[in-house]
Amino acid sequence: MGKRREPDGLEPVAGNGLLNRRLFLERALAAGAGGAALSVSAANAEPLTVPKWTLEPGASFNPYGKPSKFEDKVVRQFAPPANPATQGVGSSRTPHHLLDGMITPNSLHFERSHGGVPDIDPAQHKILIHGLVKRPLTFTIESLMRYPMTSRISFIECGGNSGGLSAAQPAVLNVQGIHGLLSCAEWTGVKLSTLLDEAGIDPAAKWILAEGADSQSVSRSIPLAKALDDVIVCLFQNGERIRPENGYPVRLLVPGYSGNMNIKWLRRIKLVSAPVMTKDETSKYTILLPTGKAWQFVLPLEVKSMITRPSPGINLGGQGYHEISGLAWSGNGKITKVEVSADGGKSWAPAALQEPILSKAVTRFRAPWNWNGGPAVLQSRATDDTGMVQPSRAQIIAERGLRGQYHFNAIQSWAVDEKGVLANVHA
Amino acid sequence: MGKRREPDGLEPVAGNGLLNRRLFLERALAAGAGGAALSVSAANAEPLTVPKWTLEPGASFNPYGKPSKFEDKVVRQFAPPANPATQGVGSSRTPHHLLDGMITPNSLHFERSHGGVPDIDPAQHKILIHGLVKRPLTFTIESLMRYPMTSRISFIECGGNSGGLSAAQPAVLNVQGIHGLLSCAEWTGVKLSTLLDEAGIDPAAKWILAEGADSQSVSRSIPLAKALDDVIVCLFQNGERIRPENGYPVRLLVPGYSGNMNIKWLRRIKLVSAPVMTKDETSKYTILLPTGKAWQFVLPLEVKSMITRPSPGINLGGQGYHEISGLAWSGNGKITKVEVSADGGKSWAPAALQEPILSKAVTRFRAPWNWNGGPAVLQSRATDDTGMVQPSRAQIIAERGLRGQYHFNAIQSWAVDEKGVLANVHA
Repeated sequence: MGKRREPDGLEPVAGNGLLNRRLFLERALAAGAGGAALSVSAANAEPLTVPKWTLEPGASFNPYGKPSKFEDKVVRQFAPPANPATQGVGSSRTPHHLLDGMITPNSLHFERSHGGVPDIDPAQHKILIHGLVKRPLTFTIESLMRYPMTSRISFIECGGNSGGLSAAQPAVLNVQGIHGLLSCAEWTGVKLSTLLDEAGIDPAAKWILAEGADSQSVSRSIPLAKALDDVIVCLFQNGERIRPENGYPVRLLVPGYSGNMNIKWLRRIKLVSAPVMTKDETSKYTILLPTGKAWQFVLPLEVKSMITRPSPGINLGGQGYHEISGLAWSGNGKITKVEVSADGGKSWAPAALQEPILSKAVTRFRAPWNWNGGPAVLQSRATDDTGMVQPSRAQIIAERGLRGQYHFNAIQSWAVDEKGVLANVHA
Repeated sequence: MGKRREPDGLEPVAGNGLLNRRLFLERALAAGAGGAALSVSAANAEPLTVPKWTLEPGASFNPYGKPSKFEDKVVRQFAPPANPATQGVGSSRTPHHLLDGMITPNSLHFERSHGGVPDIDPAQHKILIHGLVKRPLTFTIESLMRYPMTSRISFIECGGNSGGLSAAQPAVLNVQGIHGLLSCAEWTGVKLSTLLDEAGIDPAAKWILAEGADSQSVSRSIPLAKALDDVIVCLFQNGERIRPENGYPVRLLVPGYSGNMNIKWLRRIKLVSAPVMTKDETSKYTILLPTGKAWQFVLPLEVKSMITRPSPGINLGGQGYHEISGLAWSGNGKITKVEVSADGGKSWAPAALQEPILSKAVTRFRAPWNWNGGPAVLQSRATDDTGMVQPSRAQIIAERGLRGQYHFNAIQSWAVDEKGVLANVHA
């Protein structure tokens, strides 16, 4: 009595308007919208008109297609800005606020380069496997194509992604600027174990050194157990050959491990008895603690999530129904749960997880939200199948201080103001 | 005694050198190769050299990336060739012999256009839902972005794909020419059921008519039950906005149904009581029988597969180990089995199926093969979870004659000669 019962699926399940994710399953949104319980956004019918593009023959075929000219703002963002003195040193970030789904298209996959993108002729490129092996071997790209292949959809994330959240004051950045060093693609190639077994592994070998053919010879030590588990010597990215900035003609995929271990432009693999302590695992990509000591070889990327829409630049057009959508991932396995808050973490509602949910791949989550036009603070919190839960920013900073910015997987907050404009805040 | 036992996984399981798919699981290939039981293709180690691209800074960042210049032959193929008098009428085909994995990158997704690609301004484009509804509605692209989204990885296949196999003599074509009107992408958008429910479905409605904004107004009738089941009004393709040739800014995904029902440049949906009998479902896209009658509204695409490597143009470099790889799919559900033959169908070996195996998506299969240098005829045969098995070419022709070329899902054959060169044959 008194209060009218909401249609199924439209009852709030957490503070500030978060609705039940069953709404996605039960066709209840439309029932609600038709009954005006929720305001969505269709208009009453307008008369059909015939636009000019229907009145003339369209464009012809294109051997290698490209996006519509109306999507020319959907691009990667560089940091730092291009500088001839340090050409190609830096990163370019994926515009997640403008994307949806789990696959990052190849042209928008993030890039992190330490010495620019080498222009490698695949007919001349070779890979050496040497060190603690019975028979050192050289592989051409053509010869790699003869081996058994495997594919997996996997994220790659730079160890420095989201590090800006460690700043004492919240940076004026959007999701691309904060979280854009994370992308997800289908990678195909030869299992590294196949090639190592052919070379014959010396029992003294416990690690491998993988080195790239770029001008900085980026190189990392990887435990042999990981190399034999799920590492792939990749030739294909989302079906086609790997893009130059992602390691053409061949890169390592080290599923779930810190981005720069996924060595691009792979040139050699040396089997060794202990980590090599390269510049790329000592002078950087370590986690500096307040004591001045640093954690080295923090390898899997911990469970994490981000809200991609709404987010700064993709503001709320009006009150009523909105979908809160984003990505969650873990270097340790599958995502099992994502919770969303609209009140800065006071209350949480479970989001719907989009199939397929794959180990060490991103999982798209979606939560229905009825915005009442008031202020809100949106957050997401992911859990993986090892039981790890994404920590708060305060927890991470209590543990590491403000300088340990690699592997920064804290819950991040978007404030919503009364105009529907979003901004990064520390909450 | 007598015959030496092969290493685990290397025993033949079908005629003409087909090996056990367990080889992919048990790291037995390398044991075999190291022991010279199988010839793969690594060479003994060569001294490391430093190529010129390692000695200079690499290229800088690119806002929207593109493939290596060395991959400029990885392009779609047009048929018929471009003709100014019929600009944009025809198709362009995916180069599957040069790809691997399950995702087709957007630039290489096949295209079939009847009137060219319209250059649509998304800010001006509208979609009307009308006919047997309680409240006709108009949607802008901006308004669609407010609705709950869903994603799925799905193939789209032109109903005419592989129709050339009905020719009495085998066409001199490669896998792109024969099977290239099939691609697979992750599609994201709003469930059509959500929009139809908001308009309010009149109980008299049994079908929908979907119409495109291209100059030919391609339009198809779709059963309402399908529209309410899994049809998506798509805005995103592999993460980014749909490409122009695939329906920008909005197309239908009608999972598993004949390609041209996935209406591109979607302009309106009218709810109707019976199929509308448009030109696109009467004058074509029907299956003509020897009697002169035709099957209409053959909707789901039946179970099918193709071998993509080796295939014509991707010939065998030498005797020994090769992977036979390809794609299988069914408009009725999931692939449960793919068998491969190297002796023209006399004997069959089960292929390994690459995860994830998704309903109405392609599944990559792989089978290990030890080529002895003699003639071979390679075939693949898929089974889906409804129990349907891909038929032989002879079975289809016995049923339909040579003119019923739509939905042509026969087993197809690549002959291998003693030089390792492949060709399309009827076997």
